[in-house]
Amino acid sequence: MAYGLLKGKRGIIFGALNEQSIAWKIAERAVEEGGRITLSNTAMAIRMGTTKQLAERIGTIVIPADATSVTDLENVFKTSMEFFGGKVDFILHSIGMSPNVRKKRSYDDLDYEYLKNTLDISAISFHKVLQVARKLDAISDWGSVVAMSYIAAQRTLYGYNDMADAKAMLESIARSFGYIYGRDKKIRVNTVSQSPTRTTAGSGVKGMENLIDFTGRMSPLGNADADDCANYVVTLFSDLTKKVTMQNLFHDGGFSSMGMSLRAMTAYDRSLEGFERTDD
Amino acid sequence: MAYGLLKGKRGIIFGALNEQSIAWKIAERAVEEGGRITLSNTAMAIRMGTTKQLAERIGTIVIPADATSVTDLENVFKTSMEFFGGKVDFILHSIGMSPNVRKKRSYDDLDYEYLKNTLDISAISFHKVLQVARKLDAISDWGSVVAMSYIAAQRTLYGYNDMADAKAMLESIARSFGYIYGRDKKIRVNTVSQSPTRTTAGSGVKGMENLIDFTGRMSPLGNADADDCANYVVTLFSDLTKKVTMQNLFHDGGFSSMGMSLRAMTAYDRSLEGFERTDD
Amino acid sequence: MAYGLLKGKRGIIFGALNEQSIAWKIAERAVEEGGRITLSNTAMAIRMGTTKQLAERIGTIVIPADATSVTDLENVFKTSMEFFGGKVDFILHSIGMSPNVRKKRSYDDLDYEYLKNTLDISAISFHKVLQVARKLDAISDWGSVVAMSYIAAQRTLYGYNDMADAKAMLESIARSFGYIYGRDKKIRVNTVSQSPTRTTAGSGVKGMENLIDFTGRMSPLGNADADDCANYVVTLFSDLTKKVTMQNLFHDGGFSSMGMSLRAMTAYDRSLEGFERTDD
Amino acid sequence: MAYGLLKGKRGIIFGALNEQSIAWKIAERAVEEGGRITLSNTAMAIRMGTTKQLAERIGTIVIPADATSVTDLENVFKTSMEFFGGKVDFILHSIGMSPNVRKKRSYDDLDYEYLKNTLDISAISFHKVLQVARKLDAISDWGSVVAMSYIAAQRTLYGYNDMADAKAMLESIARSFGYIYGRDKKIRVNTVSQSPTRTTAGSGVKGMENLIDFTGRMSPLGNADADDCANYVVTLFSDLTKKVTMQNLFHDGGFSSMGMSLRAMTAYDRSLEGFERTDD
Repeated sequence: MAYGLLKGKRGIIFGALNEQSIAWKIAERAVEEGGRITLSNTAMAIRMGTTKQLAERIGTIVIPADATSVTDLENVFKTSMEFFGGKVDFILHSIGMSPNVRKKRSYDDLDYEYLKNTLDISAISFHKVLQVARKLDAISDWGSVVAMSYIAAQRTLYGYNDMADAKAMLESIARSFGYIYGRDKKIRVNTVSQSPTRTTAGSGVKGMENLIDFTGRMSPLGNADADDCANYVVTLFSDLTKKVTMQNLFHDGGFSSMGMSLRAMTAYDRSLEGFERTDD
Repeated sequence: MAYGLLKGKRGIIFGALNEQSIAWKIAERAVEEGGRITLSNTAMAIRMGTTKQLAERIGTIVIPADATSVTDLENVFKTSMEFFGGKVDFILHSIGMSPNVRKKRSYDDLDYEYLKNTLDISAISFHKVLQVARKLDAISDWGSVVAMSYIAAQRTLYGYNDMADAKAMLESIARSFGYIYGRDKKIRVNTVSQSPTRTTAGSGVKGMENLIDFTGRMSPLGNADADDCANYVVTLFSDLTKKVTMQNLFHDGGFSSMGMSLRAMTAYDRSLEGFERTDD
Repeated sequence: MAYGLLKGKRGIIFGALNEQSIAWKIAERAVEEGGRITLSNTAMAIRMGTTKQLAERIGTIVIPADATSVTDLENVFKTSMEFFGGKVDFILHSIGMSPNVRKKRSYDDLDYEYLKNTLDISAISFHKVLQVARKLDAISDWGSVVAMSYIAAQRTLYGYNDMADAKAMLESIARSFGYIYGRDKKIRVNTVSQSPTRTTAGSGVKGMENLIDFTGRMSPLGNADADDCANYVVTLFSDLTKKVTMQNLFHDGGFSSMGMSLRAMTAYDRSLEGFERTDD
Repeated sequence: MAYGLLKGKRGIIFGALNEQSIAWKIAERAVEEGGRITLSNTAMAIRMGTTKQLAERIGTIVIPADATSVTDLENVFKTSMEFFGGKVDFILHSIGMSPNVRKKRSYDDLDYEYLKNTLDISAISFHKVLQVARKLDAISDWGSVVAMSYIAAQRTLYGYNDMADAKAMLESIARSFGYIYGRDKKIRVNTVSQSPTRTTAGSGVKGMENLIDFTGRMSPLGNADADDCANYVVTLFSDLTKKVTMQNLFHDGGFSSMGMSLRAMTAYDRSLEGFERTDD
């Protein structure tokens, strides 16, 4: 169901790889809500994924960009503004990758060049998007910027590795830049901390399926999926949330506020049958 | 501007006293968005305020209730369900009052009977609303419940007194009941932590005007007002935020994430001219 | 091992029931560290527990008091000051009880008279201790007050019931009163959020043993036990932590900062073998 | 006053530049408490500061190291273990520097090479310290690692710039590595979030003196100074805090839990006299 929440608004969506992507769903929903968008992704992702098909279907362009490159990002904004004939109103940053995770380097055996890449791609790219936008004065007053985060920024999950530190930094960038962009241009900057989601990116994380089972049983409303997330992010892009800024917003079916649920404990209890209990 | 976000939805708004009230604005916006509502307030507030005029204008009823009375609340739900011909989809709890604040009892000289009243009115009433609703099975699946809170629940503001403790408890109730209602009926429960707002209730707090000046200068987007809040709460009642639960959501122009802004510091600096600095 | 951290200091310990009690261990450690203490508990607890034996062993008195009674608390402070020949330097509040938990009323079927008792005993008693102390000017400058809390104040654990709301209020009282007592007398007020602990009180909580297994596997250092807690609280009473106030301090082996550990997930995984996974 | 809290313990202190340094005070206190330490700083800092005098006075060595260099850090640990004749028990990381702050690049005009340096020096160096220590198995079981942080990691302070993001990452590293080191070796890792302190490092931050006045008036116990901090950190290195890990511990006189104090508001009010109020 569509409400016209983004009628007359223009936005840029970074990170729509394929149908599983959260960014993909958000792109589709933004268009359903009356928004116009451009898409951006790396050249590699464009080749490997199906971003182009999405662009064709919703009648827009794909602008290849390495989000760690200021020059590429300048091109994304300039091309988008040209395409729209004006400034943009909303931006989604859904970009993250850890070479340490990919190469199975454990967190106590990080490769520091990889770590730099993790930070560059997953956190600093967000600062670059904002700084480039600001220098080009590319976002309308009262515009809205959202980046996708994860609860690992606050609490450690084994296997999430250096992505946790990158997400913590990402959330800090949202606050730091949100202050400046809010004060000067009334533009808000937030992160959405989403349930673990079955995406191509997520699938790299160790034990993902069982983790999703656990968080699903812990969350009173179950895990939030990519469709749910698209609905939520659309409200953050709309004019109805103009005074929400510098926040990390949990969109997770309640997981972040749970210590232990009956359903998760019931599953856990089962595992203890026939085993010795430990409390150390 | 209206989007039809609450088309087909029915709700109960507790606490609309007069045009300044946040609840009043939310009631108006809910109707604009296509919702149907009933209003509830204390008999005293109905006499002293203008709730009835609002009810007439939007074509609904006012149901008098002392929100500390389970019987009264049962009547609110039964009457509302009769009026609507079915369950409700959303509820706003905007109720708070401290006799200790009113009678100028300082926090280290609380009257403990007054404290019980503060808790009863400002926090436990929220549990009663939820428990009564659940016993009567009065909320539709995937319904949404919001209570108004304030940052004093996390950080101490001089003069806010025992209302801080009540709000901390209120936010805890949202989590505790949110777990149960989410698990069993997919109903979400959240609190909105709003900027200090010039309402009849707010006006009792010591030094309110200067505090509003300070928080306004601290917040990059300025203070959120009652109209802003109404817009935001409407999104929380809509189907677009179905997986957000057990959260305390700051709606405050960024205040909660600020340590110090240039504008507030500039004002503060002025106060230090000609005065001796202190750091202890 | 003892360091003389509390040499010359006098304190009151509320809530030492028997050898399992956290308060009991803290009392013993405080004395080992050179402190002098008095003990207080309800008349009933004194009859049923072994507080008197502890008092005899460490050469002090037990002052019966219902911590919900201002008169009783006044007596505790007056008697203690007489016993010591002066003001007290530290106070431990380790008091909590929920009739709703005891009578197995679920959180969506609370008895509201019971709830009042839960709050009175588990939260408001802390305010009364502080207010009485302040009115009698019973705490030395730079004194230290600690109350025992639990993570349920921030995150919902099924079965913890209305104690979660009481603990949230308790932590708020620590902040609210900590502001006033700090500003006026340099006295600090903190809460310690302890791992689930096998005490007589804790044993009432549903599924306690399996929960302790889970939190133990989640916490990288394992659960903190009552002895660990006593060591920690002694540092908070000492002169080495004079500028720590209004904090909730997690003493839990890391549990509060964990999203998922390998050890807990391994146990959890086992439970899924032969069962269908769910993510909703 | 000394208690022998660190008797028999050995530690490494990174970042003692001169008498103003927090690390300097911690080094002195650690020795007073019976600990043995080695000192490490950059070659440049050793030349410009007075680390050597400190080393002479307390009878230890200074090991020059660029904390961004794994090789240098390996040398610090190897040399320290040789000096001590065994593993270390505690480590202080008090290292931070932002070329963007130094060169007065504002946060919306960051130089990205400088940002990398900020992160390398102020955050990643902490990971390197931990990873090197772990690979060399240089820390005894139940050892304690502390890094100095600042509230800017959670809340934006104008002028603190990219150091905010670095501190957010630093605190995340403490959690991420704290999990692993805790699970495998019972070693705890925490950050201490200290009041703004008049150090050589702190003096680079814009409007520092007035900010210190503000935080001092906001904090019920006043700002914590370097001496206070040394006392506190000593407790974290001692055996009394063995189960505290993955925490960010505010040591700030209560500032972090304050929304507004009477003293700060009184100063602020003065600034409004004769000026027009604003709330946007």
